[in-house]
Amino acid sequence: MQFPSPVSLQWIAELIHAKLVGHVNAQATGINEIHKVEPGDLVFVDHPKYYDKCLNSAASFIIINKETAVPEGKALLIVDNPFEAYCKIADHFRPFEPSHKMISDSAVIGEGSFIYPGAFIGNHVRIGKNCIIHPNVSIMDHCILGDHVIIQAGTVIGSDAFYYNTKKDRELWYKKMPSCGRVIIEDHVEIGAGCTIDRGVSHDSIIGKGTKIDNLVHIGHDTVTGKNCLFAGQVGIAGVVKIGDGVTLWGQVGVSKTLTIGANTVVYAQSGVKNDTEGGKVYFGSPIEEAREKMKELVWIKRIPLLWEKVMGKP
Amino acid sequence: MQFPSPVSLQWIAELIHAKLVGHVNAQATGINEIHKVEPGDLVFVDHPKYYDKCLNSAASFIIINKETAVPEGKALLIVDNPFEAYCKIADHFRPFEPSHKMISDSAVIGEGSFIYPGAFIGNHVRIGKNCIIHPNVSIMDHCILGDHVIIQAGTVIGSDAFYYNTKKDRELWYKKMPSCGRVIIEDHVEIGAGCTIDRGVSHDSIIGKGTKIDNLVHIGHDTVTGKNCLFAGQVGIAGVVKIGDGVTLWGQVGVSKTLTIGANTVVYAQSGVKNDTEGGKVYFGSPIEEAREKMKELVWIKRIPLLWEKVMGKP
Amino acid sequence: MQFPSPVSLQWIAELIHAKLVGHVNAQATGINEIHKVEPGDLVFVDHPKYYDKCLNSAASFIIINKETAVPEGKALLIVDNPFEAYCKIADHFRPFEPSHKMISDSAVIGEGSFIYPGAFIGNHVRIGKNCIIHPNVSIMDHCILGDHVIIQAGTVIGSDAFYYNTKKDRELWYKKMPSCGRVIIEDHVEIGAGCTIDRGVSHDSIIGKGTKIDNLVHIGHDTVTGKNCLFAGQVGIAGVVKIGDGVTLWGQVGVSKTLTIGANTVVYAQSGVKNDTEGGKVYFGSPIEEAREKMKELVWIKRIPLLWEKVMGKP
Repeated sequence: MQFPSPVSLQWIAELIHAKLVGHVNAQATGINEIHKVEPGDLVFVDHPKYYDKCLNSAASFIIINKETAVPEGKALLIVDNPFEAYCKIADHFRPFEPSHKMISDSAVIGEGSFIYPGAFIGNHVRIGKNCIIHPNVSIMDHCILGDHVIIQAGTVIGSDAFYYNTKKDRELWYKKMPSCGRVIIEDHVEIGAGCTIDRGVSHDSIIGKGTKIDNLVHIGHDTVTGKNCLFAGQVGIAGVVKIGDGVTLWGQVGVSKTLTIGANTVVYAQSGVKNDTEGGKVYFGSPIEEAREKMKELVWIKRIPLLWEKVMGKP
Repeated sequence: MQFPSPVSLQWIAELIHAKLVGHVNAQATGINEIHKVEPGDLVFVDHPKYYDKCLNSAASFIIINKETAVPEGKALLIVDNPFEAYCKIADHFRPFEPSHKMISDSAVIGEGSFIYPGAFIGNHVRIGKNCIIHPNVSIMDHCILGDHVIIQAGTVIGSDAFYYNTKKDRELWYKKMPSCGRVIIEDHVEIGAGCTIDRGVSHDSIIGKGTKIDNLVHIGHDTVTGKNCLFAGQVGIAGVVKIGDGVTLWGQVGVSKTLTIGANTVVYAQSGVKNDTEGGKVYFGSPIEEAREKMKELVWIKRIPLLWEKVMGKP
Repeated sequence: MQFPSPVSLQWIAELIHAKLVGHVNAQATGINEIHKVEPGDLVFVDHPKYYDKCLNSAASFIIINKETAVPEGKALLIVDNPFEAYCKIADHFRPFEPSHKMISDSAVIGEGSFIYPGAFIGNHVRIGKNCIIHPNVSIMDHCILGDHVIIQAGTVIGSDAFYYNTKKDRELWYKKMPSCGRVIIEDHVEIGAGCTIDRGVSHDSIIGKGTKIDNLVHIGHDTVTGKNCLFAGQVGIAGVVKIGDGVTLWGQVGVSKTLTIGANTVVYAQSGVKNDTEGGKVYFGSPIEEAREKMKELVWIKRIPLLWEKVMGKP
C-alpha cells in the first residue's frame, strides 16, 4: 500500500514504539509485505530465516526484532513484535470503515453503469462507465472497476487475502494479516456468478483488459492477470501469481501460489499447475506436463499388463 | 429463443441492414445459435469453417457474410458482420430491463411459496407453488421454477452463458454473446447454497424433476438434466450437456461441454468426463474410464517397481 | 437434535400414530439419525439391511416398520413409514419459521460485532463479540458464532444438509430429510468469501477455534473440525467427517464422507481423501497416498518406456 503522501520514519517509529537506527531522517512512501516491496517501502520481518532476504530486498525501511548492521541508505525500526507493528501501521492508514447502506456515499459510479438491487458497493469504490453490477454482488472498499465491466450475481470483489502470520507455539496458530491492497479490474472484463477475487495483502490484485471469467472462480491476493485471458468454471488461482496475456485455463484448473504463467499458455481441465509455464504451450495433468507428453503417458500405463505378461508370464 | 410471434424476414433484414435472398417472404419463429437450431429459426455464421454446417442445419434462415447458393426452401440474410446482426436481433427481442427493487412487479410467485429477504427475483420470473427461496439468492429475468422447488442461500439462477465470439486478431479477443435463453427448474428440484446455473445462450437450461443439487455446483448454458439426478458438492458441468435420468455425479466431478451422459451413469468424485457415457455404468478417473478398469490400472502402476527389478535388476 | 426438555414416548407415539412397545413409560431427550445417536435418542430405520445396526445402536427408542423383539431397556415405535414419522417429529420441534427482515428480532449479536448491510441473520442465531459479518452473508436459523469470528462476503452458514431418503421404486427417488442440526463456529475462526457450511442433519457441524478457511470452500453436514486447521480455496469436505487439530488441506482437496482425518495431517492440492488418515503425515493424489510414495510413483511411470524398450525392443 502506498501512503497518501510520504510519512516521516520518526513518526512511524513513535507510532509503533520502535528504536530507529540508520537513515533516521528518511520518509517512507508505503508499506508492503516481502513479496512486493519497492524502494521507499516499509517491510517487516520477524523470523531469523528471512532476516537476510528482507535486509537485502528493495525495501528501504525494515521493521525487525533484532539489532543488526543497517544496510547502506536504509533504516531499521527495531521492535519486539514486528508483525504487530506492521498491523498497527496498516490499520492506521487503512482503518476499518463501517458501511451503513448498500451503496457507500464515497463510491463513485460512472455514467451508464447500472447497479442491481442487492449489490453492495463499499467505501471509496470507483466504478467506470457502462458497467453492470448484478444482484447480491459485493464490491468491498477501495476496489476499482474500469469501463464496460460486467460482474454477475453473487460475486465478491475485494475479499481479504487468505494470509496469516503463522506460529505453531502459541494457542492461536494463525493471526490475520490485514489486507490493505485493492482489486483493480480493467475495461471490458466480465466476471461470472459466484466468483471471489481477493484484494492484495499490500499491493493490488489486477484483472487485465478484456479478460473473461466464468462462474465460481477463485483468484487469490496480489495475483495479476494479463489481457484477453479466459478462465472457465471453478478455476482456482492462489496468491501472488503472474498470468500473461491470452492465457486459457479450462474448468477446475488449480494454480499454486507465486507462479508465473507465460502468455498464451493453455491448461486443460482439472489440471494442477505447480510450476511456472513457458508461453504458448498446452498443458495437462496434476501436476501438469505438456499435454502431448501426458497423453502418451496415459497410453504407456495401459501397456503395463502386456509388459507384465511378457516378463512374468500369464497372470 | 422463440419470438413472441412469427416475424417477417423482410422486417428483420431491414433491422440488420441485410441483403435478403431465397425464400424472402417467409416468417422466422425464433433465433438460435448453431448448437440448438430448429426449422423456422434464424441462425448466424461468420467463419468459412462453419458455412456448410450452418447452411445444412435445421435452421431455415441464415445470417451470413458471404454470397452463396441458397439451400432449397431457405433464405440468406447477407451482412458484413453476422455476429453483430445476431446481437442486434437478440437485444431487440430480449432488451436489458433494469430492476429497481428486489422482487420485480412482473414476477409471478405461486401460492405457499416463501421468498426470504435478500433474495432477488427478476423481471418475468415465474415461481410455482410451495417453493422456498433462501436469502441472497438471485433469480434472473425470465427464469421459471416449478412447484416444491427449494433454492438455498446465495445461489444464482440464470447467470449469463460463458460464451463469446472469439477473434484473436482484434484488440478485444472475446465479445459477449447475449444470452437470451432461460433456466427452467422442474418440480421438486432442490438446489444447494452458492450454486450457479447459467441460462441458455438461445435455448433453455433445464433441471429435471426431482433432481437434487448440493452446494457450489456450476451448471453451464443450455445444459439439460434428466429427472432424479444427484450432483454432489462442487460438481461443474459445462455448456450444452445432455444428462439422462438418474445420473449421479459425486463431489468435484467435471463434465466437458456438448456431451451426452447416459441415464443412471454414476461418476466417482473428482473424475473428469471428457466423452459421452453409456447409461448404467460406473466411472472414475480424469479422463474417466469404467471404475473397475481404472481401479485395476492403479494396481498395475504399483507393480512397475517389481517389473523393473525383474528386468533391470535391483535398483 | 436435543429436545428443549424430555418428551414422553407416549406423546410421541400419538403424534406419529405409532404402536409403542417395550419401555413405554420412558422419555426421549432428542432425535437423531443413525450416524450420531446417543442414549435417550429417538432414531428411525426403514430398511431391513439396517434393522440390526439400529436396534443395537446407542439409541434408546427406535421408529421402525417391523414388529420385532425389543432390545432390553429400549422401546420400539412401530409405524408403516418411519421416515415420514421422523420428519413429523423433526418438523414439530424445529418448524419452518419465516423471516421477514434481514436481521431477525430473535438473533443475539454481541458487543463490538459489526453486521454489514445485505447480510441475513436468521432466527435464534447467536453471534459473539467483535465479529465481522460481511455483506450478502446468510447465517441461517439457530447457528451460533463465538467471539472474534470473521465471515467474508457471500458465505452461507447453516444451509441444509445434502441428505435424502432414497428409494428408486417411486416417482421421486429422493425425499428431503429435514436438517434440524446447527452450525457452531468457535472463537477466532475466519471463513472466506463464497463458502457454504451445512448444518447437521440432527447434530451440529462445528468449526474449531482458530481455524481459517479460504474462499469457495464447502463443508458438509455434521462435520466437525479441530482447532487451528487451514483449508485453502475450493476445498470440499463431505458430511460426517471428523477432522483433528492442526490439519492443513491445500486448494481443491476433496474429502469423502464419514472419514476421520488425524491431527496435523497435511494434504496437497487437488488430492482426493477416500480413507481415514493417520495424524502427522503428508498426503497427495486422488485417491491419496503418502506424498513421498506418490511422488516416487510418478517417477516410476516415466520409466515404463525404458522398460518396454528393454523387453520389447525399440518401439
